[in-house]
Amino acid sequence: MTLPKGEKNCITDVSGVQVGHITLYEHLNDKETICTGVTAILPHTENLFRKKVIAANSVINGFGKTAGLVQIDELGVLESPIMLTNTLSVGAVMQGTLTYMLNETEEIGDTTGTINVVVGECNDGYLNSIRLQAIKPEHAIAAIEDATNERVAEGAVGAGTGMQCLGYKGGIGTSSRIIAAEEENFTLGALVVSNFGRREQALFASDSKENPDTPDGSIMMILATDAPFSDRQLKRLAKRCSIGLGRTGSTIDNGSGDIAIAFSTAAKIDHHSNEITSSITMIRDDHPIMNQFFRAAAEVIEEAIYNSLQQAETTIGRGGRKLEKAPI
Amino acid sequence: MTLPKGEKNCITDVSGVQVGHITLYEHLNDKETICTGVTAILPHTENLFRKKVIAANSVINGFGKTAGLVQIDELGVLESPIMLTNTLSVGAVMQGTLTYMLNETEEIGDTTGTINVVVGECNDGYLNSIRLQAIKPEHAIAAIEDATNERVAEGAVGAGTGMQCLGYKGGIGTSSRIIAAEEENFTLGALVVSNFGRREQALFASDSKENPDTPDGSIMMILATDAPFSDRQLKRLAKRCSIGLGRTGSTIDNGSGDIAIAFSTAAKIDHHSNEITSSITMIRDDHPIMNQFFRAAAEVIEEAIYNSLQQAETTIGRGGRKLEKAPI
Amino acid sequence: MTLPKGEKNCITDVSGVQVGHITLYEHLNDKETICTGVTAILPHTENLFRKKVIAANSVINGFGKTAGLVQIDELGVLESPIMLTNTLSVGAVMQGTLTYMLNETEEIGDTTGTINVVVGECNDGYLNSIRLQAIKPEHAIAAIEDATNERVAEGAVGAGTGMQCLGYKGGIGTSSRIIAAEEENFTLGALVVSNFGRREQALFASDSKENPDTPDGSIMMILATDAPFSDRQLKRLAKRCSIGLGRTGSTIDNGSGDIAIAFSTAAKIDHHSNEITSSITMIRDDHPIMNQFFRAAAEVIEEAIYNSLQQAETTIGRGGRKLEKAPI
Amino acid sequence: MTLPKGEKNCITDVSGVQVGHITLYEHLNDKETICTGVTAILPHTENLFRKKVIAANSVINGFGKTAGLVQIDELGVLESPIMLTNTLSVGAVMQGTLTYMLNETEEIGDTTGTINVVVGECNDGYLNSIRLQAIKPEHAIAAIEDATNERVAEGAVGAGTGMQCLGYKGGIGTSSRIIAAEEENFTLGALVVSNFGRREQALFASDSKENPDTPDGSIMMILATDAPFSDRQLKRLAKRCSIGLGRTGSTIDNGSGDIAIAFSTAAKIDHHSNEITSSITMIRDDHPIMNQFFRAAAEVIEEAIYNSLQQAETTIGRGGRKLEKAPI
Repeated sequence: MTLPKGEKNCITDVSGVQVGHITLYEHLNDKETICTGVTAILPHTENLFRKKVIAANSVINGFGKTAGLVQIDELGVLESPIMLTNTLSVGAVMQGTLTYMLNETEEIGDTTGTINVVVGECNDGYLNSIRLQAIKPEHAIAAIEDATNERVAEGAVGAGTGMQCLGYKGGIGTSSRIIAAEEENFTLGALVVSNFGRREQALFASDSKENPDTPDGSIMMILATDAPFSDRQLKRLAKRCSIGLGRTGSTIDNGSGDIAIAFSTAAKIDHHSNEITSSITMIRDDHPIMNQFFRAAAEVIEEAIYNSLQQAETTIGRGGRKLEKAPI
Repeated sequence: MTLPKGEKNCITDVSGVQVGHITLYEHLNDKETICTGVTAILPHTENLFRKKVIAANSVINGFGKTAGLVQIDELGVLESPIMLTNTLSVGAVMQGTLTYMLNETEEIGDTTGTINVVVGECNDGYLNSIRLQAIKPEHAIAAIEDATNERVAEGAVGAGTGMQCLGYKGGIGTSSRIIAAEEENFTLGALVVSNFGRREQALFASDSKENPDTPDGSIMMILATDAPFSDRQLKRLAKRCSIGLGRTGSTIDNGSGDIAIAFSTAAKIDHHSNEITSSITMIRDDHPIMNQFFRAAAEVIEEAIYNSLQQAETTIGRGGRKLEKAPI
Repeated sequence: MTLPKGEKNCITDVSGVQVGHITLYEHLNDKETICTGVTAILPHTENLFRKKVIAANSVINGFGKTAGLVQIDELGVLESPIMLTNTLSVGAVMQGTLTYMLNETEEIGDTTGTINVVVGECNDGYLNSIRLQAIKPEHAIAAIEDATNERVAEGAVGAGTGMQCLGYKGGIGTSSRIIAAEEENFTLGALVVSNFGRREQALFASDSKENPDTPDGSIMMILATDAPFSDRQLKRLAKRCSIGLGRTGSTIDNGSGDIAIAFSTAAKIDHHSNEITSSITMIRDDHPIMNQFFRAAAEVIEEAIYNSLQQAETTIGRGGRKLEKAPI
Repeated sequence: MTLPKGEKNCITDVSGVQVGHITLYEHLNDKETICTGVTAILPHTENLFRKKVIAANSVINGFGKTAGLVQIDELGVLESPIMLTNTLSVGAVMQGTLTYMLNETEEIGDTTGTINVVVGECNDGYLNSIRLQAIKPEHAIAAIEDATNERVAEGAVGAGTGMQCLGYKGGIGTSSRIIAAEEENFTLGALVVSNFGRREQALFASDSKENPDTPDGSIMMILATDAPFSDRQLKRLAKRCSIGLGRTGSTIDNGSGDIAIAFSTAAKIDHHSNEITSSITMIRDDHPIMNQFFRAAAEVIEEAIYNSLQQAETTIGRGGRKLEKAPI
C-alpha cells in the first residue's frame, strides 16, 4: 500500500461526511442474545433530499437485500443517509429513516414526490438472535442523530456488532487515502461492514484453520470522495472494491451479498429547481489520476477490512457462540 | 389482440397463484384521507421459502423503490410473496411479510440464512395522505391471509386503492392468455398496479384532455405462468411488458417507476437439499411458441391496464381531490 | 403524434449529423442475388476520434451482433461513425471503418490507444445471398465518404436494401421532432433499419395476413439530438425506442436483435487533453421537458419505421423471393 | 493456493477443449515490427454452431472491443470458437472465423439464421505495429485448424505474442484445477491473454520499479469447465476472475479492457430441434461445492497470469522497444 492516509484514516476525512452508530448488545437468556446495531453514513450536513449527491453502486454478489439500489442506478443520485444494519431489519430501518426524513422535509409526499431510502445489510444471525427483530425504527433515527465527522468507532459497534469475518469477529472498519492532484488534494474514504469468509481463506497468517460454523456472510462497502465524478465513474470506482476484498481472502462466496456504494460530495444536486439544465464537473477518465483513484479504492477497502478485524474484540452471542478476535 | 383468454381472465388462471387485497379508505378530516392498501401475490400454496419459484425482473424505469430485486437477479428465484403497496410503506410491508414468513418457517435466521422479501410500490400520494404511513405490518399479513385463487377484484382495491392512470382513476388490473402447445396448454397471467401517465398520452379516445395535476406515477407489472422457463427467459418475458405498457399511451415518464417481475410455477426449487445438482426444463428459445409468449406478455399487460381503468370508480382523496372513472 | 417535425423530418435535422449509403443490388444467377448495403451515420463533421460525442445504448433484445457496445457502456462516448450493414458483414465494415479512421488519425495505435468502431446489423438473408459476404471494407469507406447532411434516402437503400419488415419490404427510415425549450429549440432525430415482424403483428391495416416465410429479423434504432444529455440520460432515451417499436406491432420476437444507440452532439469530448477535469451540461431529469424527449423518442421511432415501409419498393431477391411494398 | 491441478495444468484438461495459436513475428524495418497473433479456443470437437455450449461473460472493465458478448448475454450460449487477437484485428478475425464456420455449416445464412462469432482482444501496440493490420482472415482459420487438446504453448505465442504485463513481457497463460464432488471430479481451466498493469503494481517481488512506457493494456480471461452450470451461474463464475486478477497486482486501470468469458461443456444445446422444451442439469447454487468453484476461478486466473509471465521471453518490438522477461 503506497498512497498516503487521511488525517483520521476514516471515511470522515472526506469533508462533510458524518457517521453514527447505535449498538444493541444484551444476553436475554441462555439461548437468545441481541447483538446487532445500526450505522448511518451522512454524505453532508444539509438536507440530503434537497441537496442530493451523485452516487452509484456495484453489486459484486447479489445474494443480499440492500434497498434503494434500483433508483441509484436510474438517476445516479443519493437522497438519503446510507443506513447499515442486519438483514432482517432492513424494513424497520427503512421506516425509521423515512420518518426522520419526512420530519426534516415537509414537501416529501405532499407537494413533491417520495424519497429513496438506502439500507444495506449483512446477516449477523450467527451471534445475533436475528429472528427477534430487535432493531426498531427509532434505532435508525438514533443512529442518524449520533452522526459526527469525528474518528469513527470500529469493530463490534453499530451495524458491525454481531458480524463475523474470515472466521473471526468482524464488524465496522474504515480508512482513507489522499490522492494528490496538481493544485489540490482529493480524499477517498471507505467504511465497511465485514461479515464474510472463513479462516482457511484468510490471506493473513492465522493461528488455526479450524473455522467456527459461520455462514457465507457478506460485506457492505461504502466509498466516499470529495473528488468530482459522474455516476458512471462512481460505478467504475465501486467496482474496484472487489479488488481490495479479494486481497484479504474473499473469493465472493455464494451466500455472501457483496455490495459497494460510492458517492461524491463534490456536487450538490438541488431537488427543487427551475433550471432546465445543470452542469457537473468530473475527473477525465483518461487522466492518470483516475488510476490513482482505482488503486486507492482497492487500498481503502483492503485496509478497512483489516481495521475491522483489528478493532473487533472477542464477542459472545446467542446460545453461547463465540467469535474470537482475529490474530492480526 | 388475438390469443384466447383464460377462464377467469385473471392472473389466478395460472394454477396455484393466489391474490389477496387489503383496502384502507377513510376521510380523516378536510385535509387528510387514507386511500391506500396492500395486494399480495402468492405463486403457490406451499411454503414459498422452502419451495422457491424461478423468477426474474425487468427494471424498465428505475425511478422506484421496489425491494428484493437484487437477489432475484443474482439467484433467479423468488422465495416470498410479491407484495404491492404505496411507496412510503415498503418498509412496513417488508416487516409484516417477514414476520409472516418467520412464523411459517422456523429455520429462517436460525439454522439457515435469511429471506428475500419482494415489495413493489407505486406513489398514491395524489389521493392518499401518504406521509401518514397508514399501512402497518399487520396489513401486509392480512393481505397474504386474504389470498385466494378466485377472480381477482380490480380497480380501486388493495394496492390500487389510491392510484391514478392516464389522468383517470387507476388501480389493480389483471388478465390472462392461453398459449397452446402441441400436447398441453400454458397460461400466462398478469396483474398490474396502474399509476402512470396523463390524459393527453392515452391511446383510447378520452372526452377531455385537461389533466388533473397528477405526478408521473409508475406501474408494477407482475407476470405469472405455468410454462417452464429459466430465469434468463423470464427476464426476456418481463422485458416485453414495456410493449403492452407503451400501447396504452405510456412513454415511460421520468418519474414513473416502471418495473416488471415474472415468475414460473413450473418448477419448485427446494431450499433444503443434499443434492449437488438440480435439473430444470425450459421452453426452447427458438421454438415458435416463444414468440407466442412474447405476444401474450404484451397483450396481458395492455389488457390488465385497461381492465384497471374500467373497474376503477371515481374516487375522492385528500383535500377533496377527485380522480374520475376513465371513459373507456 | 403531437410534436412538430424538423425541417427535413430526418436525422440530419440535428445540426452536424451526416448520413451516407452504399447500395449493392445485383442478380448473379437464378439462385443468388446480392441485395445489401452499408449506411454510415456521422455525428459531426470533425474527426470523431479526437472529438468524441456522449452516447449510450439500449439492448432491447440481444439476439444481435452489433460491435462496439461494451465500450460505449463503460465510457459513455462514441468515437467512430455508427455503421449499419448486414449481419455477416460486421467484420468487413469494422475493418473498412477502421482503415478510414486510421488514415484520418495518425496517432491511433501509435502514440495513443486504439479506437472503438461501432457497427450495427440486421439479417437481410431472406432476400440477400448473405453467405457470399459481398460487402468489402471499401464499401464501408465509400458509405462514410457518401455522407451528407441532406435529406436521407429511405427504403431499400444502404443497409436497408435487403431488409424486410412486418412481412413487407422494409429498410431505412428516418424522422425528427422539435422539442421547444424556453429560449431555444432542441431537435431529436431517428434513423432505423427496419427488419422485424410478420404481417399478422402489424398495427396498420394490411390487405392480407399471409406472411412470406421471413425470419424474426431485427431492428437498429439510432437517436441523435443536439440537446445536452449525460450518457446515463441517453441510455434512458434509448430505452424509450421500445415504445415506438411496439406501437408498430413488434412484440420483440426471439430472433430479433433490437438495439438502440443514442448520441448527443451538444458536447465534444477531446481525446487529447492535459486537463484533469471536464465539465458537461445536461437537461435536468426532473424538468418537464425530459418527458417531451421521451415522447419524442417514441414518436420518431414509430414514424421512422412507417417511413421505411412507405419508401421501400417491392424488391426481388435470391431465388426469386419477393417482398412487396407495404400497403401503408 | 490449495486445490489440486489438472494433469496438464492447462485449459485443455477440460475434456474436449482445444487450443490453437498462430504467431506472427517479423522485423520489417527500423520502425515497424509485426509482433502479434491469433489464439483459438474450441469448446469441443463437434460443429459449434450445431452443438452450442452454455456460456456467459463478465465485463470487469469495458474499455475493450470484444465482439459477440451481447448475444451471449441474451441467449446464454456460445456457438463459435472463442478467438483472441489484437485490438485492431477483431474485424479480420471475425471474418476469418465466419468463413470457417460458413464452410463447415451450409445452413447458416441460408435455411437458418446467422452466427454469433466471439472475438476478444488486447492492445499489443507497444511492441506490435498494430496500425499495419497484419492479421488477415486466413490467420484466424489457421489458428482454428491448429487447435489440439494437448499442452498449450504459453508466453509470447498466438494472441500473446506482443502483449505486456505488469511492465514485463506478458502473453498467453493457462492453468487448471480439480474440484472433487462426491462421485466424480470436475475440472475448471483458464486461459488468459495478459496485457495489463505496471511494475509498481506487481504483487510479486520485482527487481526494479522503473516501468517502460506501456499503456494500461487489458486482459482476456477464459474459463472452461465440464461441470454443469446455467448461464446465470457461469456469469457468477466469470465475475470471480476479478479476484485472481487483483491478487497479481491489477487494480483494473482505466484503459484496461478486462473481460471474462466462461463456458461449460457439460451440455450441448442443439441448434436444430423439433422439441418444445429442453432440460439442463446444474450445480445447486447453495451446495458447498459452489464455493470451491469460486475459489478455483480465482486460483486459475491468478496462476494463469503468473504462468504467462514465467513463459514469456524477453521480446523486442517496433522501434526497438524491448519488454523483459519477468523476474518471477
